[in-house]
Amino acid sequence: MTEYVPTRADRFSFGLWTVGWQGVDVFGTAVRPTMDPAHAVHKLADVGAYGVTFHDNDLYPFEATHPERDQAIRSFRKALEETGLVVPMATTNLFGHPIFKDGAFTANERTVRRFAIRKVMDNLDLAAELGARTYVCWGGREGAESGAAKDIGTALDRMKEAFDILCSYVRDQGYDIRFAIEPKPNEPRGDILLPTIGHALAFIQSLEHKEMVGLNPEVGHEEMAGVNFAHGIAQALWHGKLFHVDLNGQNGPRFDQDLRFGAGNLRGAFWTVDVLETGGYDGPRHFDFKPPRTEDEAGVWESAQGCIRNYLILREKVRVFRADPEVQAALAEAKLDELATPTLADGETYAALRRDAPDIEALADRGCGFEKLDQLALDYLLGVRRG
Amino acid sequence: MTEYVPTRADRFSFGLWTVGWQGVDVFGTAVRPTMDPAHAVHKLADVGAYGVTFHDNDLYPFEATHPERDQAIRSFRKALEETGLVVPMATTNLFGHPIFKDGAFTANERTVRRFAIRKVMDNLDLAAELGARTYVCWGGREGAESGAAKDIGTALDRMKEAFDILCSYVRDQGYDIRFAIEPKPNEPRGDILLPTIGHALAFIQSLEHKEMVGLNPEVGHEEMAGVNFAHGIAQALWHGKLFHVDLNGQNGPRFDQDLRFGAGNLRGAFWTVDVLETGGYDGPRHFDFKPPRTEDEAGVWESAQGCIRNYLILREKVRVFRADPEVQAALAEAKLDELATPTLADGETYAALRRDAPDIEALADRGCGFEKLDQLALDYLLGVRRG
Amino acid sequence: MTEYVPTRADRFSFGLWTVGWQGVDVFGTAVRPTMDPAHAVHKLADVGAYGVTFHDNDLYPFEATHPERDQAIRSFRKALEETGLVVPMATTNLFGHPIFKDGAFTANERTVRRFAIRKVMDNLDLAAELGARTYVCWGGREGAESGAAKDIGTALDRMKEAFDILCSYVRDQGYDIRFAIEPKPNEPRGDILLPTIGHALAFIQSLEHKEMVGLNPEVGHEEMAGVNFAHGIAQALWHGKLFHVDLNGQNGPRFDQDLRFGAGNLRGAFWTVDVLETGGYDGPRHFDFKPPRTEDEAGVWESAQGCIRNYLILREKVRVFRADPEVQAALAEAKLDELATPTLADGETYAALRRDAPDIEALADRGCGFEKLDQLALDYLLGVRRG
Amino acid sequence: MTEYVPTRADRFSFGLWTVGWQGVDVFGTAVRPTMDPAHAVHKLADVGAYGVTFHDNDLYPFEATHPERDQAIRSFRKALEETGLVVPMATTNLFGHPIFKDGAFTANERTVRRFAIRKVMDNLDLAAELGARTYVCWGGREGAESGAAKDIGTALDRMKEAFDILCSYVRDQGYDIRFAIEPKPNEPRGDILLPTIGHALAFIQSLEHKEMVGLNPEVGHEEMAGVNFAHGIAQALWHGKLFHVDLNGQNGPRFDQDLRFGAGNLRGAFWTVDVLETGGYDGPRHFDFKPPRTEDEAGVWESAQGCIRNYLILREKVRVFRADPEVQAALAEAKLDELATPTLADGETYAALRRDAPDIEALADRGCGFEKLDQLALDYLLGVRRG
Repeated sequence: MTEYVPTRADRFSFGLWTVGWQGVDVFGTAVRPTMDPAHAVHKLADVGAYGVTFHDNDLYPFEATHPERDQAIRSFRKALEETGLVVPMATTNLFGHPIFKDGAFTANERTVRRFAIRKVMDNLDLAAELGARTYVCWGGREGAESGAAKDIGTALDRMKEAFDILCSYVRDQGYDIRFAIEPKPNEPRGDILLPTIGHALAFIQSLEHKEMVGLNPEVGHEEMAGVNFAHGIAQALWHGKLFHVDLNGQNGPRFDQDLRFGAGNLRGAFWTVDVLETGGYDGPRHFDFKPPRTEDEAGVWESAQGCIRNYLILREKVRVFRADPEVQAALAEAKLDELATPTLADGETYAALRRDAPDIEALADRGCGFEKLDQLALDYLLGVRRG
Repeated sequence: MTEYVPTRADRFSFGLWTVGWQGVDVFGTAVRPTMDPAHAVHKLADVGAYGVTFHDNDLYPFEATHPERDQAIRSFRKALEETGLVVPMATTNLFGHPIFKDGAFTANERTVRRFAIRKVMDNLDLAAELGARTYVCWGGREGAESGAAKDIGTALDRMKEAFDILCSYVRDQGYDIRFAIEPKPNEPRGDILLPTIGHALAFIQSLEHKEMVGLNPEVGHEEMAGVNFAHGIAQALWHGKLFHVDLNGQNGPRFDQDLRFGAGNLRGAFWTVDVLETGGYDGPRHFDFKPPRTEDEAGVWESAQGCIRNYLILREKVRVFRADPEVQAALAEAKLDELATPTLADGETYAALRRDAPDIEALADRGCGFEKLDQLALDYLLGVRRG
Repeated sequence: MTEYVPTRADRFSFGLWTVGWQGVDVFGTAVRPTMDPAHAVHKLADVGAYGVTFHDNDLYPFEATHPERDQAIRSFRKALEETGLVVPMATTNLFGHPIFKDGAFTANERTVRRFAIRKVMDNLDLAAELGARTYVCWGGREGAESGAAKDIGTALDRMKEAFDILCSYVRDQGYDIRFAIEPKPNEPRGDILLPTIGHALAFIQSLEHKEMVGLNPEVGHEEMAGVNFAHGIAQALWHGKLFHVDLNGQNGPRFDQDLRFGAGNLRGAFWTVDVLETGGYDGPRHFDFKPPRTEDEAGVWESAQGCIRNYLILREKVRVFRADPEVQAALAEAKLDELATPTLADGETYAALRRDAPDIEALADRGCGFEKLDQLALDYLLGVRRG
Repeated sequence: MTEYVPTRADRFSFGLWTVGWQGVDVFGTAVRPTMDPAHAVHKLADVGAYGVTFHDNDLYPFEATHPERDQAIRSFRKALEETGLVVPMATTNLFGHPIFKDGAFTANERTVRRFAIRKVMDNLDLAAELGARTYVCWGGREGAESGAAKDIGTALDRMKEAFDILCSYVRDQGYDIRFAIEPKPNEPRGDILLPTIGHALAFIQSLEHKEMVGLNPEVGHEEMAGVNFAHGIAQALWHGKLFHVDLNGQNGPRFDQDLRFGAGNLRGAFWTVDVLETGGYDGPRHFDFKPPRTEDEAGVWESAQGCIRNYLILREKVRVFRADPEVQAALAEAKLDELATPTLADGETYAALRRDAPDIEALADRGCGFEKLDQLALDYLLGVRRG
């Protein structure tokens, strides 16, 4: 059996809230004790991560006093120094406390919106201090359960206002930080603003400093809408906006499962890794999953290791798949090269194509050869073909 | 019982392919005879439509000779003249013929892509002649069933190329026509490019003449992805891109049902009409539905009338709902006005909000009053409250 | 505007856990204080309920001492006496405490299974004491996130064993209690045993005392699987197994929304009430919903009242719809009476139908008249036709 | 690379309608020519099938005269003799012709119901002649798009009547044939009767000769409802009702994709094969898929071979997974053996378990070890662990 040993160059990272999840859900209480962030950092280093990410309130509680906050940060920094782990990304908890029951940047209550922006600013300062280059914004409670409760156009105005303010702040402070919006269609709100990669990409175009804002798409969030994650991140890359990525597993439209990467839609995971490895993404491979409630701490680390292991396995498979001459022949037969050829030749105008006399019957009869190609990919995924 | 009588000022329109659908599906053959487009036009006038829309091959078959095509168009024009119906929109059939099995603008086969663009140009000429101002592009077969069969970035390059060519063509011809992209997540392809309103909005930003391209969202297509249609068109309006709309009914993620408007998600229909009527949309109210296979021609017209009737009923409800002082009080209690107030006061900077000292406990305890507001809306929808 | 005032004869009931839900979800903490069960009983009486239902740990915590438990029950009984509310149903919390992380009746751990059965017995004693006639079993954590973790056949053996034991216990004690299984497809487990009405109906046939076990289907749970709730309860009634019902609202396959009845799929709610009112169901109209986290206590009662109000509105609509001669004519035209006529005439054998010479063409051409009929129903639902 | 060569003992079978699908869908016409059934039989023999299955109208058109029908059957039989292929199953097309627009056994129109039953009888005679032992009934159009159009209880009466008649017929004729109901939630009807494995299992209990009726579940149909197929067939086996199986691929709730087996939900396919191979199923491994429209005939056979190949690959994986001592240790650690131990010991009564004094804290803290076990399974599926 091949060993799949991660190196720091692989850039695997985890949120503190992933391995630290205690298992509280709508129907049950915590199944695991609180995990000290410093402990999490050490264990993440052990499993092969190069980075750790955090919400402000993963480090210290919402109600923490300044000294408590400082102490928590000191302890976290010490662990970072001891392990050499970096903080590539940070984010804000704008959904846990009851004041965010109606959202944060788009809460109807203006005081809440102002408080939310300040909370982000405060944590941006810490993020910058810790060297984070990406700041994720997941608007988990920006949304509504009912129609009149939220005017969507107005809410988008407020969302834009928040990002414009925050971009100005980052610029004014001279922080080397970009924002990454994380879309999600629903849960915990009935419907969430910017529900998919597409909606967030479109929104970004409205911003004053749109160059500073990109995406942090999450596998499960797109699959909850039944859309293809690999297609989604390929479109994000096409727009130059894949700033970060959240890898995990999901079984289609249902509650947010946050399974370890590789569990859930395995064929989707293969193509996701294919896009990440061959499509020009160079950010962290960040896992945003929840170790199931059935697990104790040993199970937490099994599942964290599983995330990394499955990525490494799939990366190896994608590489040999793409390098295989038989695959390349099948791709050519499927005319992928022809897709890469512009429809109009260099210098040609549309008038030219109106003079084409295509052999309609031959085009209608031609097979595309996609099933053969897909079976080759599946053979690699199943490990019965290994390059 | 109130009568709901449409006028031409209501701008209801139908596709020829809707009332003319013969009922062929994956599992069964036609249940209704071919409907002559001229007959459809007369009957649509009778039910209260102001406009009719068409694919090229709704008027004449793919294989039609020039004289056959001319004859078909003459007959259609005659019916338009007799009835006074207009053609606000036209579109191209780029999915029915076997040559489009792998798509049209993004088919791997370059000859097909060229032929597709030509087919659109040909029908743009006719659309312009008939006075259409909107040209819809539904890329129903632009997609894939498997991962390697389509390189998404490259496919988006080809999609952009097609729209850039077509925009140039329209400009060069001096046509007063704008394009409207119709997103759909899947069916008939496993996954379709530009699967939601959001993805299409983002794509448009990449185009050379992006001002000429907007959206034609369809109720059922968004609901197949489990996302909120009213939210989606509100975002499209926010971006200035709701050029046209396809109204119908759907019961969540499953096959494309194309029920008459009002059937399916009725609460969603109420909020959809609310956005259309109050959000600044001024285009046609276009129905893109399929009379179920269980119906004969009488049933076809029952269902077409149902579309119009339900829109008129919902429009009336939305108006009285919005005008009701008790509703307005509930909206104020729910702080919708506060959502409309910028988060920073005029001239205020972000430094100011860092000095806020909000009463966290009070904010946490405050109820938003959304259930009361939503029940008022539901009372209107159910007709137990009538303003 | 008609008033919709409930009476006790309407048999509306609520779970303590519905109005008492504090709003804890995967992403946030409680937004409302603990609600004293006695207070809930009084308020439920005020809004027009005739009954209240409970899990053991809605009355007293898992860790309660005997005196604490007794005190809690005394307080609850006092409130019942003061208000005259009855307890038509009770149930067990077999999902909240960490020991149930892998289920209860089908936990791999035998000690947990034994403890779960005992916990049900203990609460059956209380249920009998309080006069409950139905005992609901929701197996929320009976399931798995991964394939090998649960052997389904073996788990069904254990599920059957649990019900056989509990039925024996109820018989031995002479309790006048029947069990009602509540199916759910997923959440909080990845996949749950007995995921739909159908699976539970089938399972019941395997039990020793199958006459003692029926169903408690929940609107949202079936709609999470994209199946038609009204069809589901009609099949349950057909099997004589609709012992109880959980009414609420849901927007298709996504997380369990538990909206108030009427919110979500409104057309589905109309047909649900139609089946309940005309299909022979005579149990409580039980609401199992969660007042959204956006609401304070006033909002909780708004939403509870909304459940009742919407049921009463829909009941009135269903009655006038069914009584309308034009509807009856449309039903006849749609041949519903013919569906009620056996396919073989009395005494006829199958040999006879082989001699039929049906007019295939006429049958193929005939329209079913369903769109007209459905629009009549929709007119009633919208209140533009009122009998 | 291991070769995966099927033998007849593997019992792979295909429907004539699968490889013969011409690609007609709601949006497009045929992409492949008609395939002569005799040709299909020869090619299926070549790819390694042992059996072929058919609808009556796969062999001869609905309108065929008697001589045409006889000729078609002769040609098919000749191909069977030449190849040695058997006909393990047959079924009736009760959905393609317009007369079945409102269903067959449950059409509101009684004449249609009678005709449908006769059509089944006619094909039962042929099925018996050809040696089929299983007769599948897929009620694809037994359902409705709207609420009042179908009374579900009455429709179930008619469905029961049809099966009771057909069972009598088979018994009277002395045919060695059992029926297998194929559930599906929707498409082509809005909602279909007996939407899942569970609903069909429950229905069967109502039949006069219920021992003669079981299930033919299809992977994609259950996954369209978001339920776990492996769980579903495990429950069917538990009830002794898995008479036949339809293997294919699907990507969750959306239109019926009918991908080749292995495409779609690959992890689900692994557990499906695990249940089929270890759960006591001994019927054919029947593929009910549709070669995508992108394929010519060569692609059709690629995809048919892919179905078989993927089954053989997964079967090998399941076998080594189950045989691996480390897996067995992980299963023991996950307490699967304890799930197999009855909850009450032999002779023990429920009184005993009330005297248990479990260590609640220890039970709450214990991890279940499911993530480790699931990663072992995934390692086998990915082929990085090979026993």
